Amino acid sequence: MFKTETKKHTPTACKASLAAVGDALYAIGGKWKLRIIIALSEGEGCKRFNELQRTVEGISAKVLSNELKELEMNGFVKRTVYAQTPVIVEYELTEYSQTLENVLTSLREWGAMHRAHVQKKEMP
Amino acid sequence: MFKTETKKHTPTACKASLAAVGDALYAIGGKWKLRIIIALSEGEGCKRFNELQRTVEGISAKVLSNELKELEMNGFVKRTVYAQTPVIVEYELTEYSQTLENVLTSLREWGAMHRAHVQKKEMP
Repeated sequence: MFKTETKKHTPTACKASLAAVGDALYAIGGKWKLRIIIALSEGEGCKRFNELQRTVEGISAKVLSNELKELEMNGFVKRTVYAQTPVIVEYELTEYSQTLENVLTSLREWGAMHRAHVQKKEMP
Repeated sequence: MFKTETKKHTPTACKASLAAVGDALYAIGGKWKLRIIIALSEGEGCKRFNELQRTVEGISAKVLSNELKELEMNGFVKRTVYAQTPVIVEYELTEYSQTLENVLTSLREWGAMHRAHVQKKEMP
């Protein structure tokens, strides 16, 4: 699991890395954005607000509403309003959100590995 | 850059994915932790507090101190105190922090891609 030698970076590479990871965290950082994107990737991909709130456990309606607006503004989520009575609003992922696949895969794999690592440490 | 078809997930896979990414964000989420880890990966890897604060632009001493404590508790950072006058305290990455390599690579690549994408959109 571990590499034997720590990878070293030059100051320039470190600075570029800090800037790029900073840009990424600015767009998709925080507690909720990636979770909402995962929830929207489930099943057919089109979801109503209440459905989303159920899937992303622990999120309040207000926060979900704000996060969805930001995700829409930044091109990750498409919001469609069906003008009927009652009005139906649906959210789905854009094509651009697919660019996050490697990020999500690496976080998912690392999260699962880390959970196993922590549980092993906590065993008597 | 884009895939032609959106990848769909089953509710079970979605739930597992949410849990694993949630675990990852719990350990390394937030605005600073990954940046501190990148800063520590620069050069020889051993760094003093002030050096770190200079590299991680915008972080306050109080926040850096708290984040370093959490990173140490969670096994990502090793803190060494050299008992001399004046006392020297150095921080370095542990072997375990190397498990984050894929996460950091994917975030760095995505962040650079996203910045280029945003800049292209903003061009007249």
